[in-house]
Amino acid sequence: MRLHLMTWPQVEAYLAHSTAIILPIGSTEQHGPTGLIGTDAMCAEAVADQVAKALGVVVAPTLAIGMAQHHMAFPGTMTLKPSTLLALVEDCLLSLVRHGFDRVLMINGHGGNVATINAAFAQTQMELDRLSPRPALRTRLVNWWETPEVMAASVRMFGDAVGSHATPPEVALTWALHPDLADPHPLVPAVAPTGAFFGAGDFRNSFPDGRIGSNPSLASPAAGEELLKIAADEMTRLASDFFA
Amino acid sequence: MRLHLMTWPQVEAYLAHSTAIILPIGSTEQHGPTGLIGTDAMCAEAVADQVAKALGVVVAPTLAIGMAQHHMAFPGTMTLKPSTLLALVEDCLLSLVRHGFDRVLMINGHGGNVATINAAFAQTQMELDRLSPRPALRTRLVNWWETPEVMAASVRMFGDAVGSHATPPEVALTWALHPDLADPHPLVPAVAPTGAFFGAGDFRNSFPDGRIGSNPSLASPAAGEELLKIAADEMTRLASDFFA
Amino acid sequence: MRLHLMTWPQVEAYLAHSTAIILPIGSTEQHGPTGLIGTDAMCAEAVADQVAKALGVVVAPTLAIGMAQHHMAFPGTMTLKPSTLLALVEDCLLSLVRHGFDRVLMINGHGGNVATINAAFAQTQMELDRLSPRPALRTRLVNWWETPEVMAASVRMFGDAVGSHATPPEVALTWALHPDLADPHPLVPAVAPTGAFFGAGDFRNSFPDGRIGSNPSLASPAAGEELLKIAADEMTRLASDFFA
Amino acid sequence: MRLHLMTWPQVEAYLAHSTAIILPIGSTEQHGPTGLIGTDAMCAEAVADQVAKALGVVVAPTLAIGMAQHHMAFPGTMTLKPSTLLALVEDCLLSLVRHGFDRVLMINGHGGNVATINAAFAQTQMELDRLSPRPALRTRLVNWWETPEVMAASVRMFGDAVGSHATPPEVALTWALHPDLADPHPLVPAVAPTGAFFGAGDFRNSFPDGRIGSNPSLASPAAGEELLKIAADEMTRLASDFFA
Amino acid sequence: MRLHLMTWPQVEAYLAHSTAIILPIGSTEQHGPTGLIGTDAMCAEAVADQVAKALGVVVAPTLAIGMAQHHMAFPGTMTLKPSTLLALVEDCLLSLVRHGFDRVLMINGHGGNVATINAAFAQTQMELDRLSPRPALRTRLVNWWETPEVMAASVRMFGDAVGSHATPPEVALTWALHPDLADPHPLVPAVAPTGAFFGAGDFRNSFPDGRIGSNPSLASPAAGEELLKIAADEMTRLASDFFA
Amino acid sequence: MRLHLMTWPQVEAYLAHSTAIILPIGSTEQHGPTGLIGTDAMCAEAVADQVAKALGVVVAPTLAIGMAQHHMAFPGTMTLKPSTLLALVEDCLLSLVRHGFDRVLMINGHGGNVATINAAFAQTQMELDRLSPRPALRTRLVNWWETPEVMAASVRMFGDAVGSHATPPEVALTWALHPDLADPHPLVPAVAPTGAFFGAGDFRNSFPDGRIGSNPSLASPAAGEELLKIAADEMTRLASDFFA
Repeated sequence: MRLHLMTWPQVEAYLAHSTAIILPIGSTEQHGPTGLIGTDAMCAEAVADQVAKALGVVVAPTLAIGMAQHHMAFPGTMTLKPSTLLALVEDCLLSLVRHGFDRVLMINGHGGNVATINAAFAQTQMELDRLSPRPALRTRLVNWWETPEVMAASVRMFGDAVGSHATPPEVALTWALHPDLADPHPLVPAVAPTGAFFGAGDFRNSFPDGRIGSNPSLASPAAGEELLKIAADEMTRLASDFFA
Repeated sequence: MRLHLMTWPQVEAYLAHSTAIILPIGSTEQHGPTGLIGTDAMCAEAVADQVAKALGVVVAPTLAIGMAQHHMAFPGTMTLKPSTLLALVEDCLLSLVRHGFDRVLMINGHGGNVATINAAFAQTQMELDRLSPRPALRTRLVNWWETPEVMAASVRMFGDAVGSHATPPEVALTWALHPDLADPHPLVPAVAPTGAFFGAGDFRNSFPDGRIGSNPSLASPAAGEELLKIAADEMTRLASDFFA
Repeated sequence: MRLHLMTWPQVEAYLAHSTAIILPIGSTEQHGPTGLIGTDAMCAEAVADQVAKALGVVVAPTLAIGMAQHHMAFPGTMTLKPSTLLALVEDCLLSLVRHGFDRVLMINGHGGNVATINAAFAQTQMELDRLSPRPALRTRLVNWWETPEVMAASVRMFGDAVGSHATPPEVALTWALHPDLADPHPLVPAVAPTGAFFGAGDFRNSFPDGRIGSNPSLASPAAGEELLKIAADEMTRLASDFFA
Repeated sequence: MRLHLMTWPQVEAYLAHSTAIILPIGSTEQHGPTGLIGTDAMCAEAVADQVAKALGVVVAPTLAIGMAQHHMAFPGTMTLKPSTLLALVEDCLLSLVRHGFDRVLMINGHGGNVATINAAFAQTQMELDRLSPRPALRTRLVNWWETPEVMAASVRMFGDAVGSHATPPEVALTWALHPDLADPHPLVPAVAPTGAFFGAGDFRNSFPDGRIGSNPSLASPAAGEELLKIAADEMTRLASDFFA
Repeated sequence: MRLHLMTWPQVEAYLAHSTAIILPIGSTEQHGPTGLIGTDAMCAEAVADQVAKALGVVVAPTLAIGMAQHHMAFPGTMTLKPSTLLALVEDCLLSLVRHGFDRVLMINGHGGNVATINAAFAQTQMELDRLSPRPALRTRLVNWWETPEVMAASVRMFGDAVGSHATPPEVALTWALHPDLADPHPLVPAVAPTGAFFGAGDFRNSFPDGRIGSNPSLASPAAGEELLKIAADEMTRLASDFFA
Repeated sequence: MRLHLMTWPQVEAYLAHSTAIILPIGSTEQHGPTGLIGTDAMCAEAVADQVAKALGVVVAPTLAIGMAQHHMAFPGTMTLKPSTLLALVEDCLLSLVRHGFDRVLMINGHGGNVATINAAFAQTQMELDRLSPRPALRTRLVNWWETPEVMAASVRMFGDAVGSHATPPEVALTWALHPDLADPHPLVPAVAPTGAFFGAGDFRNSFPDGRIGSNPSLASPAAGEELLKIAADEMTRLASDFFA
């Protein structure tokens, strides 16, 4: 159930029996020469939709733009300042808690968001501590690609070529959603380099096509479908525990 | 062309011949007993997609959450603080201008966003004035439902029952997108009351089912399709002028 | 009644029978080669004083500095960041509401302020929603030069030469207040060019003497007196309705 | 010369031979049972006008609202948050320095403003340190009532009854400007109590009529005229040194 | 070398051959009935001092107050808002990079700080991206108690009773620094409960003496000395790699 | 009693009979060719420790980094933005008042901090005014080197060579704490120049070795010990009055 496709009386009825909601978050950033700019948001949203279907839980609109400063040397990337993302997540949580949603699961598609989301969780709890009576709120952040079964499947499918940016698992998942956009042509080098980076210019110098340690040419719509199923099942179990 | 469905080399190629982009913005807020919570975002995005198709222009991800404080007494509504929305729009514009996008058309679905978006335009221009060399940036905000032909068609179709919130035009447009969600059952009163309001509690007291001056039961998927076509044609002309 | 010229027991007595207050706002910015830098503040304040006299209402100190970023290439202009103006207006409103003023009419002299003031209204209502008990507050913003009768009179007096910046109506009004500063010498071109602009440098390039579409040489103290009377009468009616 | 009463070409001409400007700042706050709410702003502005006349220096618009939180239990008082005043002063200074004003004298009418203004000076210098080339800017803050000759005259005129809020010197100065508002009727007690206070409620409990340690009944328009002359002469010398 | 105990010419000389610096950060928060409120800062500082001695690297002043909101129901705890800590760390990094320090290792003593510090790293890199020329800066955050050898030693020494707050390793380390403050008396229950918590009140309800899953009675000065040595050696190797 | 060396039950017991606390604040900035970068923090902390010992009062962790922007041209200096320091001090005060500490004495080691600390006091009181019930809080700021007896002793010891930065009193006090770091070699010129400065670059141009008007070569550990005793005795009396 997408919150966007409900009416307010339907939300009111839902809240009478459940106070759980999923808030997906992604990023709008380059994903290598063949990956889609919306990869992170599309993956988080796809997993969230499956969990919602399995558990009958509401899904809030996906926050499609996150922290992508170090990708800014690649056209099409959009980024928020950490202070903006912090305020954005806090405002969302304060809105939800006012209606009585007290379990918010954020399914995240981008590692660069983690720190700021956790800071927003803390700031929101601090804000709630100031209200009387204090509304209860439990939040949890899960990176869809880092749960144990998804990681195991990723390694099983792609071995050393998973890498850490524009990875075959995330690229495959978006190709499962949009098979017409699949572009598995070989890249040079097949597996991108790895290493540290500091700042946007430094990133592009070190990783000229945007990938880090990955070979997304190994991705396919079929692999994406399989991964989405694994991720959805595992995340459903996690969500079910959290919402209990 | 959705930015989310492009790769960065495709954006780079696009920027070689066009620096135009559309940034839709909506809201996540109650739209009366039968209107969808995502109405404003869905309308803005639908019009933007039509313009993009007509002009071959890129569309950035829709900002789905806006300024909806006075709807907060209805469950499901989410709102940003003005200072958050201001920072969010500024960060988006500063991201785009860095890549060379210098014409940004914001197609807006919610009247409550207008003031803050314009403040964000001013703050962004001020920020750009501090850079050397100063990047050029032209921004424009258009409310899809307020262009002359859309307004004329709305009155022609729904007469006095257009109202100002949960209006038949916007509700019809979302039902054109999701005919299965159309719910034209008669409401009581048929046309909702009008009047001023100050704050969320006052709003719900004055407008108990969330509508202001409107009768969305007059909406239909067919009317929505017609309105979307009118809006898309008119907005395409406006966009074409702006991007020229 | 200027708030500045009252004592606190006088304000306390006033609040026992009226909770209305006017808060004028202007700008400190170039107004063409012959218009005064304080034009916007002086006009708003003059109209506010007339309304106050007619209705026996209190007038708070004029906020003389507003959003004037695109005039910054002309010496003497001062500007706030939108985030500063937002905080300034919010602080003023929160101060007034604490004493029981619950109807605040902002009479505005500068179009560039509108967006940010409206954002401040929204942010203030959001802030009040968090207090218990929630103080009531109604705010309204009126641009003195845009009310129907003032606009009609402006066109009747100056025809096509009203323009949109350093206009004969506003210049005339300040010359009515300071006849010794009237400077109606002919300008070249008589009517300034019009067009869009983005950023301060672009503005001065397009409008080298600061005017947009106007011919303030048509202004005169007599015309200003007439306009002030029209504006004062019309604004008094608007204010009377709002304060009722 | 009031900046508000100049045109931009006049400011441009002025800047060709002087880069000095005065920025008065006051407060909008209770000044005891007989003092005007605008006392602090009126005093600062009156002294600034005299200095401007003597030295031929430009005066920017008075910032009429300052830090008055501990007076908020008295109706009519308006206050900014320190963070707002900090941003307001910084924006003013950054505006002025852009035009080439590099000596800004702030003549202050309210002790509660001092800390935040000085913080704003530091933050502005920090901001300028980031620009290249770094604009030069010298700022000075002077409290008009604390210069040696004004203090000596105050004690000579009013002895122990000067006190620290709603003082006879400041009240007298405003009565010199508005003799019709002079209200020297005896107060009870003649001299108000003194002491520390913390927060607005505590202030009103300790000082029920708003005065601290003062007897403004000793004030008179004539005394105000004398003090204004002393203050103007002394401040002119200080300003002349600073602007040299 | 403590930065606080150096002169500026000594820092200048140091920068001629090394651009590395350590910035320790802790927290000021309850650590159970027998642990010190300054535990996190003391541990981070102690490890930093050992690394500094081993490598001849400068140590900046310890940031002693961090994110401790969920401990606020225990007296003595002090906490920053995430937005404050973000600004604090950013200001520190921007100060250091201006002098040419381009490798900053933050040794952290408190898990609650991690998210906000990482957000500050991102915000600082974003800020640096706006400067020209862009200063290089590499930052790394290491939690002293989570490095592999320290974790292994902790489990070896304390088994299941390590827990996650007021742990025997951190308590032991502070007792090694202050043997006179060691207080190993048995607690009831010996091992504290574990579980999730949301907000300060909830935390104290769930963990009435402040510990989570730990038995700090197992700590001793001797164990602390041993752990400090292990941590110092391991961190020295990590730091040496990072600074290379 | 250092807060850092207490357990929370000890703080709870302390609060049962005293609500007083000392919060020292310094700066991390150059102190001339022979003075330590941590001079301001070390002095404030040393005086605070003596007062704490005399009165049995708790001392919170020293805020070691303050407002040092104009020293930023000297390596090793670290500075906060005023807005950061304001938030930092406010967060500290709000933390302490939550536990019932209602008398907070800030012992300050750096003149540049004064304005922002006072702004933070005002902002904190404003924040507390919004809570219900309003917590009481009294704050006081004392500069250790500006109390009458310390100033008299400084002049007696060092005459005209006290100056205003890197002064012999503060340098002597740190040498009393670290006699091994005393470096009284003659400087050229013996007494540093004085004058105004604006911005960091201007400061270093005017004061090339960092001193202003001082001759720290006159300092000695013995003089520092004497001054610390005088400062501690005088501050103890001031603190005793404030805490009463």
